Amino acid sequence: MAVNLYIPPESQIFPIEGVEIGTAEAGIRKANRRDLTVFRLAEGCSVAGVFTRNRFRAAPVQVCEKHLAGGHDIRALVVNTGNANAGTGESGLRAAHDTCAALGNVLGLAPTQVLPFSTGVILEPLPVDRLTAGLPAAVADASPSNWFAAAHSIMTTDTQPKIVSKRVALGKHTVTITGISKGAGMIKPNMATMLGFLATDAGIAPGLLRDMAGAIADRSFNRITVDGDTSTNDSFVIMATGKAPVRIDAVSDPLYTPLYEALADAAKELAQKIVRDAEGATKFMTIQVEEAGSREEALKVAYAVAQSPLVKTAFFASDPNLGRILCAIGYAGIDDLDVSKVRLWLGDVQVASRGERHPGYQEADGQRVMKEAEIVVRIALGRGDETETVYTCDFSHEYVSINADYRS
Amino acid sequence: MAVNLYIPPESQIFPIEGVEIGTAEAGIRKANRRDLTVFRLAEGCSVAGVFTRNRFRAAPVQVCEKHLAGGHDIRALVVNTGNANAGTGESGLRAAHDTCAALGNVLGLAPTQVLPFSTGVILEPLPVDRLTAGLPAAVADASPSNWFAAAHSIMTTDTQPKIVSKRVALGKHTVTITGISKGAGMIKPNMATMLGFLATDAGIAPGLLRDMAGAIADRSFNRITVDGDTSTNDSFVIMATGKAPVRIDAVSDPLYTPLYEALADAAKELAQKIVRDAEGATKFMTIQVEEAGSREEALKVAYAVAQSPLVKTAFFASDPNLGRILCAIGYAGIDDLDVSKVRLWLGDVQVASRGERHPGYQEADGQRVMKEAEIVVRIALGRGDETETVYTCDFSHEYVSINADYRS
Repeated sequence: MAVNLYIPPESQIFPIEGVEIGTAEAGIRKANRRDLTVFRLAEGCSVAGVFTRNRFRAAPVQVCEKHLAGGHDIRALVVNTGNANAGTGESGLRAAHDTCAALGNVLGLAPTQVLPFSTGVILEPLPVDRLTAGLPAAVADASPSNWFAAAHSIMTTDTQPKIVSKRVALGKHTVTITGISKGAGMIKPNMATMLGFLATDAGIAPGLLRDMAGAIADRSFNRITVDGDTSTNDSFVIMATGKAPVRIDAVSDPLYTPLYEALADAAKELAQKIVRDAEGATKFMTIQVEEAGSREEALKVAYAVAQSPLVKTAFFASDPNLGRILCAIGYAGIDDLDVSKVRLWLGDVQVASRGERHPGYQEADGQRVMKEAEIVVRIALGRGDETETVYTCDFSHEYVSINADYRS
Repeated sequence: MAVNLYIPPESQIFPIEGVEIGTAEAGIRKANRRDLTVFRLAEGCSVAGVFTRNRFRAAPVQVCEKHLAGGHDIRALVVNTGNANAGTGESGLRAAHDTCAALGNVLGLAPTQVLPFSTGVILEPLPVDRLTAGLPAAVADASPSNWFAAAHSIMTTDTQPKIVSKRVALGKHTVTITGISKGAGMIKPNMATMLGFLATDAGIAPGLLRDMAGAIADRSFNRITVDGDTSTNDSFVIMATGKAPVRIDAVSDPLYTPLYEALADAAKELAQKIVRDAEGATKFMTIQVEEAGSREEALKVAYAVAQSPLVKTAFFASDPNLGRILCAIGYAGIDDLDVSKVRLWLGDVQVASRGERHPGYQEADGQRVMKEAEIVVRIALGRGDETETVYTCDFSHEYVSINADYRS
């Protein structure tokens, strides 16, 4: 049961010229489902990626980083669900390379022009033979209008496909942005068990796109948490095909900022959809920390609150047990925090001031806000001017059920 | 449903000469339950305490630290359940002081000779009038044989009382050690929502006892985690009455080490009982990290594993989904971790070597260990010689139920 997760109608999902997508049933883990996705990119496309900081980086993540760092002309992406190809050592790396070689073989590309992605169970060998056997069917299926099918085919424990698409006026021209994401558990910044693929027909210089990818991730996929578990496989890729008559080479270009903002908004929407569909989520919470001395300490506090099982279960119960939020602020790791300066709001209701219950606070007001499906928790620390925002969800019975049963 | 929590028969709970305990019904939060506990200490008792590092330290914690730091001759402790007196600002401090003054008045002591403790809901005013009204009845009830009653009366969401008692031969003499603890949720090191009270009739010089209290906490109450939430109220107190014919003034005393070990073992047992009775726990897990470069990094890894909701739900399901453990090791924050040196054992079964699935590993072996109620997870990092051990439990439906309903 996702929380206010908007799925656009197919008519509102705009293809990106230069991107074709095909899906197929490869039987990676389960039969009778499309679990293999291939992106074909036109020549001259810029591609940039941001990947997990987990030290156990999955084999496909290592291969992606190598192929991107090598400055190869990336022309295809291949995504499998059902198996993460993580914790698989040398044989896992070989499997990821073999996947790239096989797709390169079908498409007439060098293996280094392919980026591989995997999501699913960790510590099990990737059935690379089944995967490569499915590639010709996926390639045969390729079409510019398959974004919706791809959003489905990359899902694991997701209950809903996650897709965003829009057209944006840039100067005299219009560019199109379309993207998909997946992820529902093992979600924590830097990054989630999430895959995100965002494409635009604008042209963007490769170096610039690389910088933009990092900055955009820090406003979207690196600001969500479901359970505090940073996955081994997280990957976010931006593709700029350059088929529209707009090309941006530098930050100084007047069209840079509107394009950056449009891409960042699309990424943020894709990231928030992951939280909205988080395993067992019944509430979508925005944790905004203000007046921090630095962005780092704002994030520390935001994540301490967003990841506290006690806070999350209280939200699940719609119980304004708000002392649990103060408690989490207190253990967030700011050693010289002056609690007498801390204020806390739940929606528009001020709950705490001077580090204690706000004089005007009535439990009925807190209760009213807690019953809503979308809740903003605002925390002012009284230490400086920095603000950071993190998105999360509540913690329900369903989360336990899903994660206790995931492999069965 | 606690996991193998041993409750000794009353005949095996030995009084400590110099300690009398009384309990009473004060109606702090719920009617018809003993929620107030008073310890009376004989003259000449050494008392030392270790308290939460949460920046929102509850009012009673602040008062305890002040009274202990002042070198006052501590002669009484007062504990209430049902209300934490935390997030209560100046009025909370006043309530804690009033509590000390009221008990001092009944016992003929200065307020500074009393240590106050509170546990329960945060951010609500302590009903200090009801508390102080209950003090005469608690004092009238005082007796050396009330340890078991006290173990009950300090409980909150605990399902079982936690008590340890033993006699230890020290040279020609025997000393007695008896203690109680409480806590089941909001449990994470430094410290848990836990209260621990440990007493011995051995004599220990006050400065030495202070050092011992810190070291003992780091082997017991600071090595447990249920949900990663460090409470505002955690307190661990050791009392040494000096009534037995054994007195230790320095670490160089040959009896120091055996006494220290006996006290540390008792504290560890009390701490482990908290995990065994953790909210919703069905399994008791020992996470042992070896070959770390420092104790700090061993703890980082141990806590990342112990606190991962994905690891904890997999244990709840008895599902050897062990990639989740590697994943948690990977995001524990050791930036230069060489994953190819990491090995992992589940009980006696080696699961991973060289950062991947161990060649001899069979899922059936992992499954066999996962079905046990007590599981040792052993992780070798291949970086050095340091070892740390953390105790935790699984994460079940029941945890969510308890924490979603706690206040109702």
